[in-house]
Amino acid sequence: MNGSAAKTAITPTRAENFAEWYQQVVRAAELAEPSDVRGCMVIKPWGFGLWENIQRQMDAMFKATGHRNAYFPLFIPISYLEKEAAHVEGFAKECAVVTHHRLEVGADGKMRPAPSAELTEPLVIRPTSETIIGATYAKWVQSYRDLPILINQWCNVVRWEMRPRLFLRTAEFLWQEGHTAHETEAEAREETQRMLEVYATLAREHLALPVYAGEKSAGERFPGAVQTLCIEAMVQDRKAIQAGTSHFLGQNFAKASGIKFQSRAGAEEFAWTTSWGVSTRLVGTLLMAHGDDDGAILPPRVAPTHVVILPITPKAETRDAVLAAADVLANRLREQKFHGAGLEVEVDRRDLGGGVKNWEWIKKGVPLRVELGPRDLEKGSVAVARRDRGVKEKEFLAADAFVAQVAATLQSIQDGLFARALAQRDEHTRRIDSREEFHAFFTPKNAEKPEVHGGFALTHWDGSAAVEEQVKNDLKVTIRCIPADAALGGGPGVCPFTGKPSAQRVLWAKSY
Amino acid sequence: MNGSAAKTAITPTRAENFAEWYQQVVRAAELAEPSDVRGCMVIKPWGFGLWENIQRQMDAMFKATGHRNAYFPLFIPISYLEKEAAHVEGFAKECAVVTHHRLEVGADGKMRPAPSAELTEPLVIRPTSETIIGATYAKWVQSYRDLPILINQWCNVVRWEMRPRLFLRTAEFLWQEGHTAHETEAEAREETQRMLEVYATLAREHLALPVYAGEKSAGERFPGAVQTLCIEAMVQDRKAIQAGTSHFLGQNFAKASGIKFQSRAGAEEFAWTTSWGVSTRLVGTLLMAHGDDDGAILPPRVAPTHVVILPITPKAETRDAVLAAADVLANRLREQKFHGAGLEVEVDRRDLGGGVKNWEWIKKGVPLRVELGPRDLEKGSVAVARRDRGVKEKEFLAADAFVAQVAATLQSIQDGLFARALAQRDEHTRRIDSREEFHAFFTPKNAEKPEVHGGFALTHWDGSAAVEEQVKNDLKVTIRCIPADAALGGGPGVCPFTGKPSAQRVLWAKSY
Repeated sequence: MNGSAAKTAITPTRAENFAEWYQQVVRAAELAEPSDVRGCMVIKPWGFGLWENIQRQMDAMFKATGHRNAYFPLFIPISYLEKEAAHVEGFAKECAVVTHHRLEVGADGKMRPAPSAELTEPLVIRPTSETIIGATYAKWVQSYRDLPILINQWCNVVRWEMRPRLFLRTAEFLWQEGHTAHETEAEAREETQRMLEVYATLAREHLALPVYAGEKSAGERFPGAVQTLCIEAMVQDRKAIQAGTSHFLGQNFAKASGIKFQSRAGAEEFAWTTSWGVSTRLVGTLLMAHGDDDGAILPPRVAPTHVVILPITPKAETRDAVLAAADVLANRLREQKFHGAGLEVEVDRRDLGGGVKNWEWIKKGVPLRVELGPRDLEKGSVAVARRDRGVKEKEFLAADAFVAQVAATLQSIQDGLFARALAQRDEHTRRIDSREEFHAFFTPKNAEKPEVHGGFALTHWDGSAAVEEQVKNDLKVTIRCIPADAALGGGPGVCPFTGKPSAQRVLWAKSY
Repeated sequence: MNGSAAKTAITPTRAENFAEWYQQVVRAAELAEPSDVRGCMVIKPWGFGLWENIQRQMDAMFKATGHRNAYFPLFIPISYLEKEAAHVEGFAKECAVVTHHRLEVGADGKMRPAPSAELTEPLVIRPTSETIIGATYAKWVQSYRDLPILINQWCNVVRWEMRPRLFLRTAEFLWQEGHTAHETEAEAREETQRMLEVYATLAREHLALPVYAGEKSAGERFPGAVQTLCIEAMVQDRKAIQAGTSHFLGQNFAKASGIKFQSRAGAEEFAWTTSWGVSTRLVGTLLMAHGDDDGAILPPRVAPTHVVILPITPKAETRDAVLAAADVLANRLREQKFHGAGLEVEVDRRDLGGGVKNWEWIKKGVPLRVELGPRDLEKGSVAVARRDRGVKEKEFLAADAFVAQVAATLQSIQDGLFARALAQRDEHTRRIDSREEFHAFFTPKNAEKPEVHGGFALTHWDGSAAVEEQVKNDLKVTIRCIPADAALGGGPGVCPFTGKPSAQRVLWAKSY
């Protein structure tokens, strides 16, 4: 890596100011930028390419588990939100509200909402779609034969945010929301678990994120859910990011929306429903988990481009030959398969200095950079730089050998990112059994770096909301999940906050 | 086809009431349904599957022409709409206006927009994104080196509609909007033309729609555009549907948004921009173009399922063998390629009567239905029904032969749909040279069927807005396009409405 005096491409560094480092990475990698509309972001092509890959790979997993996509209205009548009491408490607070359906020019010559076009019932831009989809399912379901309904929707949602942060928390964001209805409780619970596993697989194998999977405490549940399962990632400032949730809704929403069916026994019953979602927040999560002080580092499985070829053309007379050789190499690479699809390769032909281009691609986090110059043509060689190694580190390879092993190299980067993130997570996850140690763990050591704290604590809990509340007030620490893995839960113990019995350890952390 | 006394699956028939036939087809095929939110539809899985295929195929064409996807905010500040005078006239009228960002419980116990959370500047839900994207491009472009910008966005848009019709005209719809910025006028004009050709190819080769391509008259142009190119399809009631538009925006939006750059000569210049879009309206268009009195007929290239296998299981003792054989056949079919991808095959194992299932698939418009029963197993045969033939028509084939020729059969259906639509269009497109004949052509013959009229007229026009206005008032007929094809334009002539000279024939029709 860089020597101690070396400059980094991103200022400040992670150690200096993690939050600001993140903003600078998003900017420098041309992933996204704030828009003039408060709280809304513009997702730039490089960032959207990442999301498209996540989306395509996840969509294939949804279809392989029997789901189909559909589309429901953007607008939700206010009265729908009132149907599920817990839901309205949790979601109705910060919504974009549509009150008019026309503009007109006012007396001052400026445009304004036309008073004559005020809606009888205001509409809310969906913050999530349980209510509107529930109303639709109620029409579709009459008999047990109409179940299960296994539908997913890719769409935009809006939750007004006062303190937006690109990808992690914006007023508008993109996501998918699965909504299923089932004949039995067991089927619905099985579905909830199945989709959590899909998310965990996506996080671990595609995004190289070693997530913890488990259940939320009652206080952290989705408003209206009976059970919320989640995956939680640790990023490099040791905070947690909830990367995906899967909710078992019991019959709550079915009752609120009237999703009733005639059972096999001839009785009228309410359906059992689930919902599950992940969002563009995954992009922020992987950036915070893998990036370094030179910018983004993208996991090869979701990188929009796997290999960028940087032709070195110092002299006019060799320029054409180098560019032609770069195209030949690009096409050979595109014929190689990585996880079933041809490699995405870009030849950067822009008329800019080699150093400028190289640094742009470092900051963007492309997995492999390949330099190809006049002397390489003679020798049949290439100079290969891996984004997971030091920025100055190059390997000189025969072009044939590079092509033959490129898929393996990409997989090695993918595996390396996962291993690095796992090591960081495990290093900063600690079993803690006393209140004092717990407080010390989460209390910053250095007043100048108020963000640096211990990480994840696996600590017993008596199951009470009072303890959760107290810990949150004292330390801004919450229960991220009750881990499903018995090795983490570790069986019964004693809550260090109250001395009462605890069924198992739970995972505590500060979070985004 | 059905005999004269035969019942059809859809009531009314096309001849009886085309508008109502269409609504019934959309419902019977389970493509979409109205939602409780006025003007908004629910796109059901079968309809969304169609749109996904159109989307995926079009997206590949966009990428092959150098475009990348990105995402811009749903919300547009009112002040942005005021920037381009013609644009505001055309679009600001019927918009969803967001005025508040929070709900609260009012004195009556009902939810209401919180008066304390009124926005300083109301936001409009994007009816199209030229203004917000223009504001962003203005930040991205400094030098000619930053051009061209070639970006597309897949998203939802809202244009308040008082008379919604599923897929064709809804308050919210899904679409793509391409937005590009160029260094020169010539490049921008070339882009406008290139994307029109992409749309024409999509319509003709993927959707089996024989569209006319041309330019809009000034009166029918996109608000703010210098030139609007379009493709126009004829559907079975002989009306036109605009199936895609590509706009050359000149420097109008660049000036309104401030997209300036330093040119190669060092001068400050405004960029030249384009925009182009197609929407879920394409789904409505292909349904109206190809459907028959038994329901939808989907072009194989975009059908969510190519082949449905209907196992015939009259006896319990042969049931397992038939279902197993159906799965074997399905897997063999999935290995066949149609336009580069494996076939989409469904085995309908539902425990419903064979007739019920068969009719469901007829109404859904799946290209091929295959019956497989106990006797077929003995003979190694299948009974194949093509959706483009009569519903009772079956061909008995050796299973091997069917598998070997299935891709060719699908292409034959695809080609046949195009040929049928082309014949219908050509039969009802007429060169008309007198005002009287023009009026007679567009005047319904039968008061009981006020919708039945001639079709498309290729008639000279003096180029005046006055003639357009008059014809529109008299007959509800508009200029759909000034055809690019010289064989249609036919060179100079005389306008039958004014006797003035006309540069070429233009295409007139009633339209959706």
